[in-house]
Amino acid sequence: MSTIERFLPAISWLKSYTRANLKEDTIVSVVFTIMVIPQSLAYAMLAGLPAITGLYASILPSILYSLFGTSRTLAVGPVALTSVMTASIIAPFAVSGSEQYATIAILLALMSGAFLLVLSLLKLGFLSNLLSHPVISGFISATALIIVIGQLKYLLGIESQGDTLIPLIRSLYADLHNINTPTVILSIASIGSLLLARRYFGRLLLFIGLSQANAKLFSKAGPVVILVLATVAVATLSLDQAGIRVIGTIPDEIPSIQLDLVHMDMIKDLLPGTFLITIVGFIGSVSVAQSFAAKRRQDINPNQELVGLGLANIGSALSGAFPVTGGFSRTVLNVDCGAKNPMTGILTAVFILLILLFLTPLFFYLPIAILAAIISISMMQLINTEDLRLLWRFSKKEAVLLIVTFLVVLFEGMQAGLIVGVILSLLFFLWHTSHPHIAVVGRIPGTEHFRNVQRFDVETNPSILTVRIDENLFFANARSLEESLQSLVSKNTKIKHLILMCTAVNMVDASALQSLEKIDSRLKDSGVKLHLTEVKGPVIDKLADSDLIKNLSGKVFITQHQAITELEGEQANS
Amino acid sequence: MSTIERFLPAISWLKSYTRANLKEDTIVSVVFTIMVIPQSLAYAMLAGLPAITGLYASILPSILYSLFGTSRTLAVGPVALTSVMTASIIAPFAVSGSEQYATIAILLALMSGAFLLVLSLLKLGFLSNLLSHPVISGFISATALIIVIGQLKYLLGIESQGDTLIPLIRSLYADLHNINTPTVILSIASIGSLLLARRYFGRLLLFIGLSQANAKLFSKAGPVVILVLATVAVATLSLDQAGIRVIGTIPDEIPSIQLDLVHMDMIKDLLPGTFLITIVGFIGSVSVAQSFAAKRRQDINPNQELVGLGLANIGSALSGAFPVTGGFSRTVLNVDCGAKNPMTGILTAVFILLILLFLTPLFFYLPIAILAAIISISMMQLINTEDLRLLWRFSKKEAVLLIVTFLVVLFEGMQAGLIVGVILSLLFFLWHTSHPHIAVVGRIPGTEHFRNVQRFDVETNPSILTVRIDENLFFANARSLEESLQSLVSKNTKIKHLILMCTAVNMVDASALQSLEKIDSRLKDSGVKLHLTEVKGPVIDKLADSDLIKNLSGKVFITQHQAITELEGEQANS
Repeated sequence: MSTIERFLPAISWLKSYTRANLKEDTIVSVVFTIMVIPQSLAYAMLAGLPAITGLYASILPSILYSLFGTSRTLAVGPVALTSVMTASIIAPFAVSGSEQYATIAILLALMSGAFLLVLSLLKLGFLSNLLSHPVISGFISATALIIVIGQLKYLLGIESQGDTLIPLIRSLYADLHNINTPTVILSIASIGSLLLARRYFGRLLLFIGLSQANAKLFSKAGPVVILVLATVAVATLSLDQAGIRVIGTIPDEIPSIQLDLVHMDMIKDLLPGTFLITIVGFIGSVSVAQSFAAKRRQDINPNQELVGLGLANIGSALSGAFPVTGGFSRTVLNVDCGAKNPMTGILTAVFILLILLFLTPLFFYLPIAILAAIISISMMQLINTEDLRLLWRFSKKEAVLLIVTFLVVLFEGMQAGLIVGVILSLLFFLWHTSHPHIAVVGRIPGTEHFRNVQRFDVETNPSILTVRIDENLFFANARSLEESLQSLVSKNTKIKHLILMCTAVNMVDASALQSLEKIDSRLKDSGVKLHLTEVKGPVIDKLADSDLIKNLSGKVFITQHQAITELEGEQANS
Repeated sequence: MSTIERFLPAISWLKSYTRANLKEDTIVSVVFTIMVIPQSLAYAMLAGLPAITGLYASILPSILYSLFGTSRTLAVGPVALTSVMTASIIAPFAVSGSEQYATIAILLALMSGAFLLVLSLLKLGFLSNLLSHPVISGFISATALIIVIGQLKYLLGIESQGDTLIPLIRSLYADLHNINTPTVILSIASIGSLLLARRYFGRLLLFIGLSQANAKLFSKAGPVVILVLATVAVATLSLDQAGIRVIGTIPDEIPSIQLDLVHMDMIKDLLPGTFLITIVGFIGSVSVAQSFAAKRRQDINPNQELVGLGLANIGSALSGAFPVTGGFSRTVLNVDCGAKNPMTGILTAVFILLILLFLTPLFFYLPIAILAAIISISMMQLINTEDLRLLWRFSKKEAVLLIVTFLVVLFEGMQAGLIVGVILSLLFFLWHTSHPHIAVVGRIPGTEHFRNVQRFDVETNPSILTVRIDENLFFANARSLEESLQSLVSKNTKIKHLILMCTAVNMVDASALQSLEKIDSRLKDSGVKLHLTEVKGPVIDKLADSDLIKNLSGKVFITQHQAITELEGEQANS
């Protein structure tokens, strides 16, 4: 693969692109465009922005990802998790609906895009490893629950605010007397028909005579059909006069960043949020891309994904929208529609643009409650208790990590939850590595093999203590190594030689080096020599030039067997 | 050792304590008391408190540590690093000299003591591992530099404030015109004589006829002699009238916590600072304790040290003082005076109490500049460039860690420096483990040994790919494992079996388990079976019950050799 192909992966698939492909992709894209509109509108609303912004966020990002991303089928646009994070990040700075709010949303997309590109340039994609599975699982469940509760205001036609459980419920409760009956009826009808459609719409299509293939394809069109029916009903019966909220007039101008509303302090304050939304979006997207790529033995290059998603977000900012990423439900829809290569992303963008140019008046009577119903149903599926059950069986500690993350997100917010989760994961890991497995070993009689004295019947020498450490030596366990060895030696005054057997040590950092030097000098003070055996090549290369080896009271032996033979020989001679 | 002895280590040494011991320890304690007074006064001043508080902090803490600590010689009291951290933590909340300031200092000692006890109860001493060697080294050098610059105001007789470089220098510069000439002369004389005393005082004592042993012992008394001479000079010449600042009248009442000045928000705001000062104090103390214990093959129990230091800090709070810990220079002095068991700590406390009760009027004319001179000289030795040089040779990345910590402490403050240092250490470590060494292996012909294909001349089978991972599998590398394996498999469509050889895997967490499940299901989608070999006992025990093993497309083989034999056999038969 040439360098330019690596940077612009589109070249490789465009090379073999044919007119027949184009015809097929056009049909796929038309169907996908229609089907993806409801979730695009809904997720914009989730971000606290006018629903139409969801379409703005589906054009340039989709084109840019198609050109620069490495997945053939990933659909990039508004995604539930990043949308709700967007709302939660902007909330402290501006009121939804204000110019300030729109500007911060754009700024956030721009910063997130820039951040992804920086991560790519510095090859820092590994940062996404900070979020462990239990943390992500707890985060998603809690966020989905918060989203569902947050949608109640649209489903009931009342007001509420907040992005954590207590304020949300309190504000919902306070406004409960304003419930709008027509809205509630519409919501119940929407949720009911969406659930029914999910189960029976495919069969209905078969029943009215569609072919098996077409029925399967259009079975996912349930939400679109319900959306259209509801909009027509609202329009013809003037239900908006009865208190059902609708999208209303869509402004001609697309929003753009108001530079006079942006200042450096705001950028600084948005940094932690940007970091988290970027990492969460990136992890989700790469994981979806890899799942679909694996089925066709295609490869996803995470570093190039950073570029593709980074440019997509900058594209979204240029379109006056908000952070986007590759979404699971969006991609499933894309694949179900028959998408096989990134051209569908480009064509979809064109069709959405056409809709924006010519068909927006049709959205006037679209009821917001139905978008809330779509969001609620898809979020309910993300609340995952099975994961907790499995985790509890596998590792109590990691289950606690999930629960803590879940509760902190629920009661303190998404950012706090992620940060607490990451810190706890690191602490659990540090706890684990700072208690490395240390075994006193002896020789299996008649062999050159050395094994744990507690598990095997082995020979030991009262004046020679051999210790094997089953962990890398680095700052997290350097000091506990000092303690363990000092404790072992202080228990037995006969010891004259301490051998560290380094079979399992792949790495030694400066903290561990310093600890080893301290151990050596303390042992020297108490009349014990320190020896090293079985040190791996790269480790000995790194240590060769250090004061540890220069001043070592004992020797470095290639093998444990050599060490024992030589030291026992010395004893016999003296 | 009985449980009670473990909790109250004093019992074990008190059992064998004799009248002869008491006589010897009394002499040691009198000498040590006199010698330790200058640094106790100086470090209280460094904490922003009246110098006399340094003596308050040397009584109860010393007694409590002697009873509950595990070191026989560690001297607990005011220490430079924790004192300057105390000043820096309190600075945002109160002005040095105010009642509010004294109350927060006491609160900080109380919280730090409580925190140490909590760490001990929850066995969380490993948290101190968070501070790696490069971070501590950069932190100490920068802090020492800031301390020296901060003492200039006392040495020049002017005013300055701030605990970072820029504000400190700026405020010193602004007040430069107020320099007090007598103070400067006294400072230069003090520094000069302290430096000379350090080098020649011992010889002088020999010259005037002291025995070798006594000369060595009293050679450390230089600061005390200079302090006495300077105080006498100031008193007789009334130099305080000439602008030389002196300690002045010492209030009869010892300070106590003003509960009306304490509120919950303050406690919350002090938490991060408490955490850092506690960890820094604990690491320093344990490291000193271990150095001296090792020489006599004594054992230090870090968990019991948490108890000893925790109670010492609570004792300090009850005495109206500030956070204390075990100090290096204090302990060196103690050992030089001949301390061999903790009774000296108790006796020293008694003598300091006697001085406080009867001799405080003598402190009236003690010039503050001389305390600043003592501090400056001892801090200059802590600025360590050799460490950076060694580190640079050993690992550029860790040298950068030291430099970054140094600079952040200098320009942003001690807390920021430690936090940035810890985060960077963790990120460097994560970077390392998230790029584990993964080797494709093959069989050395005619043996059952499998080695890296790139280093050895080995046999491989085109449809069987064996991969060995040289790292634990956990959240930091789970996703990169997915990427590496997918990339390996996507390059070669002939592969039917992927074998993971787990010789070096000591641990698998839930994130890695989930990644392995994903890998398995993706491989299944592309027609490849996943097998595991050489899985260690504890790992297989943990995995046994998981969906991974239940749904695994391939098998779990005990040895790599078995796997290859069976899979190649299957191929031959089909």
